[in-house]
Amino acid sequence: LFLYRCLISQAEVQAFIERCMVAVGTKPHHAHSLAEVLVEGDHRGHYSHGLNRMDMYVKDIRSGICAKDGEPVVEKESAATALVDGKNLLGPVVGNFCMNLAIKKAKEVGIGWVVAHGSNHYGIAGYYAMQALKKNMINIVCKNLSPPDAVDFCLQCTLGTNPISVAAPANDGDSFVLDMATSAVALGKIELHERRKDPIPEGWGCDPQGKLTTDPKKVLTGGGLVPIGGNEDTGGYKGYGLGMMVEVFCGILAGAQYSKHIRTWKVTDRVANLGQCFVAINPEMFAPGFSDRMSDLLSIQRNMEPADPNLPVLAAGDTERMNMKKCEELGGISYHINVVNYMVRAERGGAVHTPLLPCDRLLSS
Amino acid sequence: LFLYRCLISQAEVQAFIERCMVAVGTKPHHAHSLAEVLVEGDHRGHYSHGLNRMDMYVKDIRSGICAKDGEPVVEKESAATALVDGKNLLGPVVGNFCMNLAIKKAKEVGIGWVVAHGSNHYGIAGYYAMQALKKNMINIVCKNLSPPDAVDFCLQCTLGTNPISVAAPANDGDSFVLDMATSAVALGKIELHERRKDPIPEGWGCDPQGKLTTDPKKVLTGGGLVPIGGNEDTGGYKGYGLGMMVEVFCGILAGAQYSKHIRTWKVTDRVANLGQCFVAINPEMFAPGFSDRMSDLLSIQRNMEPADPNLPVLAAGDTERMNMKKCEELGGISYHINVVNYMVRAERGGAVHTPLLPCDRLLSS
Repeated sequence: LFLYRCLISQAEVQAFIERCMVAVGTKPHHAHSLAEVLVEGDHRGHYSHGLNRMDMYVKDIRSGICAKDGEPVVEKESAATALVDGKNLLGPVVGNFCMNLAIKKAKEVGIGWVVAHGSNHYGIAGYYAMQALKKNMINIVCKNLSPPDAVDFCLQCTLGTNPISVAAPANDGDSFVLDMATSAVALGKIELHERRKDPIPEGWGCDPQGKLTTDPKKVLTGGGLVPIGGNEDTGGYKGYGLGMMVEVFCGILAGAQYSKHIRTWKVTDRVANLGQCFVAINPEMFAPGFSDRMSDLLSIQRNMEPADPNLPVLAAGDTERMNMKKCEELGGISYHINVVNYMVRAERGGAVHTPLLPCDRLLSS
Repeated sequence: LFLYRCLISQAEVQAFIERCMVAVGTKPHHAHSLAEVLVEGDHRGHYSHGLNRMDMYVKDIRSGICAKDGEPVVEKESAATALVDGKNLLGPVVGNFCMNLAIKKAKEVGIGWVVAHGSNHYGIAGYYAMQALKKNMINIVCKNLSPPDAVDFCLQCTLGTNPISVAAPANDGDSFVLDMATSAVALGKIELHERRKDPIPEGWGCDPQGKLTTDPKKVLTGGGLVPIGGNEDTGGYKGYGLGMMVEVFCGILAGAQYSKHIRTWKVTDRVANLGQCFVAINPEMFAPGFSDRMSDLLSIQRNMEPADPNLPVLAAGDTERMNMKKCEELGGISYHINVVNYMVRAERGGAVHTPLLPCDRLLSS
């Protein structure tokens, strides 16, 4: 049995997503923003947040649960802060608006702290981090999500995986890019194990009774994800605390939905009203030589002697960097053929009948 | 065998620490700042960062490795940011200076982000968080420390336990106060197990070969602490990334020492030049009703049905709140008698001969 992967150029994936979104009524420049974020997700190797997610956005626009028209609005502003109403637009439209505003403020007064309510899923946080890095800014992005996260060990889920991303520029285009869920793993990893019928490692999720389980099905049907750190002994209360911190910066500060008030994942009976937080920090306002120290810190980490000589120590962002290098070498993004087939099926959200295929090349994986 | 604990009023502990510090040449108002932070550590139940640590500060002042005289200086400033030279003063002197400056800026432009280099150990982060909470501000505090933290699983230690604290005000004096090391546990917990000859749980530390161990001695002699999350499977790289994030905000942004360049813990052959970061965020600049939403979020968490009915779910800061309540009921702080005996021995840093005892009351523990 051979499994094939399709190699497709980034430009082609970008154009396909734009076509699909415009076909259901998205404004072209909104479709462009969304496509850029999704392509960057695949480019960085986060396939769970790329093309694979397009159907969700198509569905949101078609059903009208996400707004087709309008622009985000600044509701309140100071030299360093802003509160933005995302007007229920696509997450990347709100995200770009907020990140650009944060960068502008950081140029002027050293920091821009912008929070949005009325937003939707915005793809990978790393995309926004890249915008800040291009301007030599440090960046923090976080968002709240609907709760699959069980506090160690209780019976209800009251926090989302509430991811946080922090990025900082070093010399010569190098950077530190942390992009993590505050649960031990993201939901997608549990789903992947369930699809493969593999057990999950102890410490990822719990069953509906709140006990740790290695059965992915139990986690997905009434159980929950475990915060980083696993149980009480190994610091699980810290992951729980970090998830709460993200909720404070997003839902609570922005006046969006929060905790169990957030609508269930993929159920679109009402608008999401997610809260998101975008921060840019200008290192020039602090001690001179920031990027030199950043480069030194990254090289200290990377040059540590690994316990296993075959597994060199990586800094946050290195895995993504390797994936992007691979894309550049191949001349495109390599997708699992099933993902491509799924996307080109005519009923795929009813968006378009133009196929994404033929892909540029088939790769045997 | 009965073990006794001594009950001592907070005012008495405060006065004792001030006397000891002034006796070795500390300026009275600096001694006052330090004493306040240490007493608050004990009051909140973090005995590892209270009176128990006084000898370290006495030694630092006596040896001259920490400055007796001067005040912190603002080196660079914008409406929302500041870079402070701590002038090698006691950590709490630098910490109070920076936190007050951050609060002032947050009142004016919504956020104050202040970083200091040339600082020393500042006690519990929770103390500074309390100053911000009193002004209804959200607060972030972090600091870098000398490296006992081993990246999963390499042979060197290149990050400190790099703690981070985040606090947010709710209604009626309630609050969320997260105060955590980015390692699975703090070094003090390993020391405590070693002293009791107890094994440590898997996932706390590794041996000098970089493998997980349950032997606390191996962790303390050439091994290292493990980042939150334990191994690769359970998200240890996230704890490592968070430790790096704190290093970016502290040592790197402030131009202080960082990573392996920081002097070894308790070795005082050269000045510490620690980096610290103090942030205040003014919720009034964002969506109205912040404290109502905070109270609701805290009550959602606290009212979750626990997996074990005897272990109600707590929010970050609740354990400390219970400890403070106990102190209020007892009318003072209850110390292990050995700690008190140690502190009153004449050779105790050579500081003073005035005994702390007689304590107000003996409690059998």
